[in-house]
Amino acid sequence: MANQNIPYKIYLSESELPRQWYNLRADMKNKPAPLLNPETLQPMTAADLAPVFCEELVAQELDDTTPFIDIPSEIRDYYKMYRPAPLMRAYRLEQALGTPAKIYYKFEGNNTSGSHKLNSAIAQAYYAKKQGLKGVTTETGAGQWGTALSMACAYFGLDCKVYMVKVSYEQKPFRREVMRTYGADVTPSPSDTTAVGRKILAEFPGTGGSLGCAISEAVEAATTREGYRYVLGSVLSQVMLHQSVIGLETKAALDKYDITPDIIIGCAGGGSNLGGLIAPFMGQKLRGEADYRFIAVEPASCPSLTRGKYAYDFCDTGMVCPLAKMYTLGSGFIPAPNHAGGLRYHGMSSVLSQLYDDGLMEARSVEQTAVFAAAEQFARIEGILPAPESSHAIKVAVDEALACKRSGEEKTIVFGLTGTGYFDMTAYERYNNGEMSDYIPTDEDLARGFAGLPQFPGSMN
Amino acid sequence: MANQNIPYKIYLSESELPRQWYNLRADMKNKPAPLLNPETLQPMTAADLAPVFCEELVAQELDDTTPFIDIPSEIRDYYKMYRPAPLMRAYRLEQALGTPAKIYYKFEGNNTSGSHKLNSAIAQAYYAKKQGLKGVTTETGAGQWGTALSMACAYFGLDCKVYMVKVSYEQKPFRREVMRTYGADVTPSPSDTTAVGRKILAEFPGTGGSLGCAISEAVEAATTREGYRYVLGSVLSQVMLHQSVIGLETKAALDKYDITPDIIIGCAGGGSNLGGLIAPFMGQKLRGEADYRFIAVEPASCPSLTRGKYAYDFCDTGMVCPLAKMYTLGSGFIPAPNHAGGLRYHGMSSVLSQLYDDGLMEARSVEQTAVFAAAEQFARIEGILPAPESSHAIKVAVDEALACKRSGEEKTIVFGLTGTGYFDMTAYERYNNGEMSDYIPTDEDLARGFAGLPQFPGSMN
Repeated sequence: MANQNIPYKIYLSESELPRQWYNLRADMKNKPAPLLNPETLQPMTAADLAPVFCEELVAQELDDTTPFIDIPSEIRDYYKMYRPAPLMRAYRLEQALGTPAKIYYKFEGNNTSGSHKLNSAIAQAYYAKKQGLKGVTTETGAGQWGTALSMACAYFGLDCKVYMVKVSYEQKPFRREVMRTYGADVTPSPSDTTAVGRKILAEFPGTGGSLGCAISEAVEAATTREGYRYVLGSVLSQVMLHQSVIGLETKAALDKYDITPDIIIGCAGGGSNLGGLIAPFMGQKLRGEADYRFIAVEPASCPSLTRGKYAYDFCDTGMVCPLAKMYTLGSGFIPAPNHAGGLRYHGMSSVLSQLYDDGLMEARSVEQTAVFAAAEQFARIEGILPAPESSHAIKVAVDEALACKRSGEEKTIVFGLTGTGYFDMTAYERYNNGEMSDYIPTDEDLARGFAGLPQFPGSMN
Repeated sequence: MANQNIPYKIYLSESELPRQWYNLRADMKNKPAPLLNPETLQPMTAADLAPVFCEELVAQELDDTTPFIDIPSEIRDYYKMYRPAPLMRAYRLEQALGTPAKIYYKFEGNNTSGSHKLNSAIAQAYYAKKQGLKGVTTETGAGQWGTALSMACAYFGLDCKVYMVKVSYEQKPFRREVMRTYGADVTPSPSDTTAVGRKILAEFPGTGGSLGCAISEAVEAATTREGYRYVLGSVLSQVMLHQSVIGLETKAALDKYDITPDIIIGCAGGGSNLGGLIAPFMGQKLRGEADYRFIAVEPASCPSLTRGKYAYDFCDTGMVCPLAKMYTLGSGFIPAPNHAGGLRYHGMSSVLSQLYDDGLMEARSVEQTAVFAAAEQFARIEGILPAPESSHAIKVAVDEALACKRSGEEKTIVFGLTGTGYFDMTAYERYNNGEMSDYIPTDEDLARGFAGLPQFPGSMN
């Protein structure tokens, strides 16, 4: 194996760390639909967004023409504490599967947040600090984003208020403590600390919460406090911009060894990791320079791409955010309680939604027992205990590698290993005890979510 | 900072991974005292050790003359999945402390076991497999070693039985699940599954256990089963041999940039990480080629070097193991229940004990609230959430850097960051809630431990 001269881990040097993020929208002929003001149904302007988001991030959110945006040196210095992240060659997994495929994974888990989320958290905290803000508010589901933001805020000396989806808060008590160690204030959502939280609690007293609820609370907490803004860990185009560092590093590492991938696979919740991973490759495809297969993998229990509608929808349950056009299950959709891990957002990044609608990307949904089986297999063979989210990508990478075994094709598969599962042991325990089950929403379940979609001319494809 | 041309992370390439372990004993004029057979009080022979330990590991344990021992390629291939580990420059910490000192840390936490323990686990599992064994048994305290061994056994297809100190088993439920995910069988110790466990339970019904108890159970479980041997994660000279990969990589990374350390600091429980880190540097000192200060840091609640006796003692509570001459608190010593984290073994590696007795190394004990304060500070500044064990080294590294600030000396400090604290959040929670306390054993507490030391001619310095 070692005689192939490709190491187990391809590391770029710190001087090879990207100096610019890549803005995929600049190369898209069909641009993602603009965010709309829910009252006027007109595209959101910078002035509309300024009370909620940091100025520079608003500019990035609205910019769909500039292909490259400089990464400030303060952000690059922080990145250097944990990046460039390694591109790993899964020699052992290939051998165990007996596949002629070559499997690589970009491993983003080697930092305390345990995932790629830190790439955007540090950028967003930087811009908040630069604007002279006191602090930021946010939501977190599985807890990776909240941890990442807590780390970034500790670093820049910003106050950090995290609304954590109640079911995750209860399933992951230690996540809360990591965030507190970094100085963050963590509240289970829905809570009675906000008007929207009290309203949701009154309507659904026993609810375990959702990302949509937590977003509403975090937005309210930011907009009702002097010197605070709201920041978001996925879905938005600015986040995908920051996460392009994943794809840029991946491409640089592959180029170093003259490797051309055939298939690029990532898990998709809000879409930021997948969008970041595929960005430079999709850019080549859009510009006609190369072709790749892209596969978005989502949970069968929260299937926004594979079973959602491409429509304008609320980004949050409280309907305080702009409308975004995306593949969505409706802002009222909440995955079944037996769903473990993240990837529980009702919608999908508008950039990825547009690419999917244009047929430039595939999507696949997988059930969680199969995902955890793949996770366990991967852990035992490759050593790394993967996050449940990341394991969706592992499952499909293994499926594709086994397809190569049947066909004899020597394809090169790259997938994103977005993070580690060290704080997901409650879910692993359920799997270890044989207590994990699958749930696929019925058409009736989905119809209830779709019923809440806003209806106006042009709201839907 | 970046203009100093030393990156935040010095990575060696996989081809620079050491090809041989370094056996420090070969360069010691005063060899560590031999293990003794507790019945005959004669040095243990390979034949005496063979029923308990794997053959090749017995040979390594008894070899105090061969300076370099080849690392088998199967072990190097596994190492390549997570090594070489980075040597980090703590630019941010230096800046925050305002010290002229240059601080480096060797980070061993970027693998799922969360620590350096994997370096020896993979070696020991390899030799067990090579000998044709069915499985291995072991003890674990904080859980890092048990996790590491579970990973190694999954990799080589060996059965793995882990006896976990009961208080850790209860404080760290998720550690158990990680081990189970890798296929290990985990039993809280003392248990009723062994004769020695039943005896200890009868004598001390409510005991939270100790490493000494768990070792006794694991040894019994190995020696009463066909095709099993016992493996140990620290204390033994063979483990320190495997861990020399830490120091060899550290030295190679420093040499690459012409950096000469002044002070090398590591936490010390059984001594394997510290011994591994300092090995090549201590070798230079022993050969008169260079001089360094070495500081072993231990908890004030389990102060084997700073307050123990240098004497022959039992390695385990059940007194089934050979006698080892070491700095010890007595095999009956159990740290106060408020002690969090590892470093709770009653004795110290015989190699380090001899070096300490010869005045070649310093030792310092620190209290746990100060250790967690250093851990929190480090996490917020350097990003990585450290293990409580590793934070002992952080505390003293910070102390030394602040001493440089006072004296104006530009010393170079290297410390071992042995692992991450992701599974130690119960302890962090106590610290975050202001519920953590210190406990320093009284002289009477220590006298009770010393009373159990075996007495025979030459048993004590």
